Amino acid sequence: MQSDMKTPLLAGSSSDASKPLPRCPGGPVIGIIGSGDFSRSLAIRLVACGFRVVVGSRDPHRIPRGMFPDGVELRSQREAVDGAERVVFVAVYPEHYYTLVGLRELLAGKVLVDVSNATRLNSGEQSHAERLAELFPESRVVKGFNVISAWALQAGAYDGSRQVLVCSDCSHSKALVLQLARCLGFSPVDLGGLCGSRDIEEAPLILFPSWGGPILAVFLLFLFFYGYSFVRHILLPYLDRGENNFHQLPLVTVNETLPAVALVTLALVYLPGLVAAVLQLGRGTKYKRFPGWLDRWLCRRKQLGLLSFLCTLLHAVYSMCLTLRRAAGYTLLNAAYQQVKAGVEKSWVESQVWRSDLYLSCGILGFGVLSLLAVTSLPSVGNTLSWREFTFVQSGLGYVALTLSIMHTLFFGWDFAFFPGAYPYYLPPVYLLALILPCVVLVGRLLLALPCLTSRLAKIRRGWESERHRPPQ
Amino acid sequence: MQSDMKTPLLAGSSSDASKPLPRCPGGPVIGIIGSGDFSRSLAIRLVACGFRVVVGSRDPHRIPRGMFPDGVELRSQREAVDGAERVVFVAVYPEHYYTLVGLRELLAGKVLVDVSNATRLNSGEQSHAERLAELFPESRVVKGFNVISAWALQAGAYDGSRQVLVCSDCSHSKALVLQLARCLGFSPVDLGGLCGSRDIEEAPLILFPSWGGPILAVFLLFLFFYGYSFVRHILLPYLDRGENNFHQLPLVTVNETLPAVALVTLALVYLPGLVAAVLQLGRGTKYKRFPGWLDRWLCRRKQLGLLSFLCTLLHAVYSMCLTLRRAAGYTLLNAAYQQVKAGVEKSWVESQVWRSDLYLSCGILGFGVLSLLAVTSLPSVGNTLSWREFTFVQSGLGYVALTLSIMHTLFFGWDFAFFPGAYPYYLPPVYLLALILPCVVLVGRLLLALPCLTSRLAKIRRGWESERHRPPQ
Amino acid sequence: MQSDMKTPLLAGSSSDASKPLPRCPGGPVIGIIGSGDFSRSLAIRLVACGFRVVVGSRDPHRIPRGMFPDGVELRSQREAVDGAERVVFVAVYPEHYYTLVGLRELLAGKVLVDVSNATRLNSGEQSHAERLAELFPESRVVKGFNVISAWALQAGAYDGSRQVLVCSDCSHSKALVLQLARCLGFSPVDLGGLCGSRDIEEAPLILFPSWGGPILAVFLLFLFFYGYSFVRHILLPYLDRGENNFHQLPLVTVNETLPAVALVTLALVYLPGLVAAVLQLGRGTKYKRFPGWLDRWLCRRKQLGLLSFLCTLLHAVYSMCLTLRRAAGYTLLNAAYQQVKAGVEKSWVESQVWRSDLYLSCGILGFGVLSLLAVTSLPSVGNTLSWREFTFVQSGLGYVALTLSIMHTLFFGWDFAFFPGAYPYYLPPVYLLALILPCVVLVGRLLLALPCLTSRLAKIRRGWESERHRPPQ
Repeated sequence: MQSDMKTPLLAGSSSDASKPLPRCPGGPVIGIIGSGDFSRSLAIRLVACGFRVVVGSRDPHRIPRGMFPDGVELRSQREAVDGAERVVFVAVYPEHYYTLVGLRELLAGKVLVDVSNATRLNSGEQSHAERLAELFPESRVVKGFNVISAWALQAGAYDGSRQVLVCSDCSHSKALVLQLARCLGFSPVDLGGLCGSRDIEEAPLILFPSWGGPILAVFLLFLFFYGYSFVRHILLPYLDRGENNFHQLPLVTVNETLPAVALVTLALVYLPGLVAAVLQLGRGTKYKRFPGWLDRWLCRRKQLGLLSFLCTLLHAVYSMCLTLRRAAGYTLLNAAYQQVKAGVEKSWVESQVWRSDLYLSCGILGFGVLSLLAVTSLPSVGNTLSWREFTFVQSGLGYVALTLSIMHTLFFGWDFAFFPGAYPYYLPPVYLLALILPCVVLVGRLLLALPCLTSRLAKIRRGWESERHRPPQ
Repeated sequence: MQSDMKTPLLAGSSSDASKPLPRCPGGPVIGIIGSGDFSRSLAIRLVACGFRVVVGSRDPHRIPRGMFPDGVELRSQREAVDGAERVVFVAVYPEHYYTLVGLRELLAGKVLVDVSNATRLNSGEQSHAERLAELFPESRVVKGFNVISAWALQAGAYDGSRQVLVCSDCSHSKALVLQLARCLGFSPVDLGGLCGSRDIEEAPLILFPSWGGPILAVFLLFLFFYGYSFVRHILLPYLDRGENNFHQLPLVTVNETLPAVALVTLALVYLPGLVAAVLQLGRGTKYKRFPGWLDRWLCRRKQLGLLSFLCTLLHAVYSMCLTLRRAAGYTLLNAAYQQVKAGVEKSWVESQVWRSDLYLSCGILGFGVLSLLAVTSLPSVGNTLSWREFTFVQSGLGYVALTLSIMHTLFFGWDFAFFPGAYPYYLPPVYLLALILPCVVLVGRLLLALPCLTSRLAKIRRGWESERHRPPQ
Repeated sequence: MQSDMKTPLLAGSSSDASKPLPRCPGGPVIGIIGSGDFSRSLAIRLVACGFRVVVGSRDPHRIPRGMFPDGVELRSQREAVDGAERVVFVAVYPEHYYTLVGLRELLAGKVLVDVSNATRLNSGEQSHAERLAELFPESRVVKGFNVISAWALQAGAYDGSRQVLVCSDCSHSKALVLQLARCLGFSPVDLGGLCGSRDIEEAPLILFPSWGGPILAVFLLFLFFYGYSFVRHILLPYLDRGENNFHQLPLVTVNETLPAVALVTLALVYLPGLVAAVLQLGRGTKYKRFPGWLDRWLCRRKQLGLLSFLCTLLHAVYSMCLTLRRAAGYTLLNAAYQQVKAGVEKSWVESQVWRSDLYLSCGILGFGVLSLLAVTSLPSVGNTLSWREFTFVQSGLGYVALTLSIMHTLFFGWDFAFFPGAYPYYLPPVYLLALILPCVVLVGRLLLALPCLTSRLAKIRRGWESERHRPPQ
């Protein structure tokens, strides 16, 4: 058995370093200086993974019993550093690093892990880890574990689903910490020398880095459509005829804006794919990189899609609340009064009935399809799909949703756009503006589905190149 | 420590082969022929897991800098094959395999991993891997990794949540690739010899294999109820009295069909469990296998349940949009006109008020319970439940949802079914038809809850057998 | 390479025991007595992880072919025990343990794993594992694997996401089983000696242990508000004036109760955090533990938040169904009749229109924010957030949702609370009662946001202590 496996594949890589450690007494002793939340959670995880832990506190007698798990020794900072076999975590706030200077000799030769976070972005200051390295020149400072919260340490999964960013100038010590992170059930990522520590310290400060652009785009779209709708329906009629429609601001105008934003955003999900296909067709090769903006846009499609779904959901809820509005009640009562006064026994316009049922149906079905898309973008559901299934859902069903949304808007518009009354102050209705981009995307997609273009694109994506790109033979 | 663990349990199994490899330089060199998306993603993952990678391209100078991560060497195909220690991935489209024939000698003795997919189902052709094995008789061909997408390679989890299907005629080489897949954070599955490679290549082509049957069943139910409703409400009245109800087609008829489909599908979720229990009771043993159709049906309950929930959700949205319909407005206006004409000051039918509030309440509560069921069927939520909790939710709450749905339908029907007017053209209303199966299931469940049957079933499920099954002592 | 890694960190911990076992033939032989569902699933998982398995049945010839996977040997119980190298799983119902007494000599020295569950709570009986240990005094009994369902064994993930609770009086045997659990892809938890086996056996019986308190709290709140509303709107008017409002019971009263419950529950999510901050401020240190009830309350915030969301969701659905009610139709018709009789051409109260649109808007937006919160509490979504993102969503957005919900209620109340008519029988309206606690929480949060308190709290949370707590220098 042993001999079978002594293959070249493994000869260079097999080492004791990578073995997960058993959860049993007898593991190596890890030191932690500091006795705060992070220290406690780190100790819990270390013990759970079979390490022995010694925690050094300024005043170990004041720590309540039971705060640290069994198997953790609570000592003075000096004793803890002395007892640690090789690795010492510094779980002390950076402003107190100087208080540890007295331990300098004891810490010499040991691996100090700096787990601190930056308190603000782009401060341009020296990183905490670099300062620690200056304070303890004979120790080997490794930056790491700061992106993991105390909660994730204590209660998170052991399945490597969380990354630990690590950097150090000492590759031996770094290898040790990378391995330790893996033993604790994390995915370590080696980010090079200690000069990268500032970035690691600032990493936890950046909230939702992939959502900034999409949220800004949707917000600007919302501002535009809301402003346009405000000017067209409320401001101009008020200036012109003194008509008071301001009561539409909180709900009616919002509910006119949301579907426009949702529709345009949905088109923005599928536009970059078309642009990429056109670029590849035009260039005749797939081996040229896309421009940066297109790459970033392609990477933000999921976020755009989810924001579009959120707008759609809000639009659906707003619409279903429309009949709850007092204004809707008044309108109906006044219409009843008019009907009675006019003596119309049965009011019924067949085409209006068809129109309302058709746009409601398309809207509901489109919403249902978008819901399926949203569910499959949950990580745990998406993981169960193969890549073809994922493509089928996100691209196939996505275009179905786009088509249903466009039909929903078209049926809603009916033939009203063909009457001059739909253009007060020469301003077209909101839904017409919102239809432009989605229709462009849909037509573009249909054009790309022409057999001549499809087959050429398929060839290019399988590695074929047009003549001008081929290397001279 | 070492001696403690030298137990028989481990003696046969401990080997260097299974160790996860450290993410540090010095790992073995893996070769990849081809420089497309799959090659790039595979290289990223290999490097992240501590391997050294050499990629062979037809024209390495034309590949943009930064496309491959640091640590990947870009070379000609010949150099790459030469540099690879043992394993070479063939990430080239099958139609270009013949271009590699010149490398035959260099590839001799190496492990070639074929990662290609089939392009269509049941073609009956030779698999790509078998063709590769014919082209390179002195190499050891292993099929694998094709079910993993480029995206999953690059950005997916390292937690073994994704399977890699592997087969080969050389068990040594297969063991190597199985182990490599484990090192990369996947769950390898050994599917035997290379004769199984066609199945592996076709695996990614089959979309949602477990959903086909349930979707077909729901679709047929929808067709049946929609057709029935169309004939009863629209076609026959039109032929008979020339009544034009066609405007009901897009929304009203759909919203009459959806709850019927949802209810029958929900009954179909619980019917196979009853059938299985009856079979076990009748046979007096649990050691006989169920017939195949019942096994398959039992395996599809989750899918049926989710489809039932989808129909319920659509029914809820459709219903909440009912008052938005123009037709609803006309109906109300005309009723107001009639009331004024008739001089009725206060119209109010207490029983109708109770009926509508009761069926709405039951419907909403049933929908709420079904939502809980749907949430617990998300993989990440279901994983946190113990099996008793899962049973409680899926079986206990499931029957609550079924009961509430039946009550929703009964209150909706009220006493109308007892008047001849409910049977135009001798056709019973849709909701009566939809109630049959759910009521059978509910009554069956109640019968099985009789103490005598429950205790006998519990005994059987704990391994007791009736006399005729017991082996002669 | 090898020498690099022979560091003190690893010297004490590296052992062959912790290596995952390869999935290839040649693994150690594990025995299983019993051939039921659990036995089958366990065998499937053992084989998948590279072990050889021998299953012992009372009558191995009666087990259908294909029930156990290839690689499992089906034998008599005696042969199976004989063939097992060291570990034997006892997958037989506890009431049949006595039938194994004949195997006592063969089982001597082997590790018996008891996988049985308790059938009821707090029975005070001897545990099954202890009984097994009495029956086989020369074997080493380990309790474990009972919390894993057959389904999880067969189809669950291999990523250590599921815990296996283990206890035994023999630490050697326990270490072996802990390690075996890790090899099978579970997270073993060592719970000490066999005296803890009763707790392990009862663990699967306790349903949703973290949900009991929150559900009880929400249920009591519901009872209180429903009862109050019943007395105020239905009982007293009936006793007083004989007014029959009983038709409001199933829907209207419920829909008045649900938002009150949702709002108070949402306040209960944020109250314990405030109490904890006040305690820390008052004590001037974070090194004193919170009282037990506060700790438990802090641990239940997620459950309370989800229950609040459920109530909000039901309230939203109930409200959107309000216009579907027959009673709503009657009310509108009667209003139309009155309007016609009174000859009012245009009924329109601008302030009422604003009121309804504003409270609907706030409600919808609050519901949208709560939905985001609910989505991020799904395990698979929450895992992708950093702790700062999680805090931003759960605390920042949470207070936004609370504020929007309070505004929703205030706009709903408008100025009606200032008229005596709002206090029939001196009882204030439900929404006023429901506002008390949320307003207290919001005001408390705003007070804590005062710069002097914020900075002091931040200092305390970074480890600063007021003078009276500092140890004498």
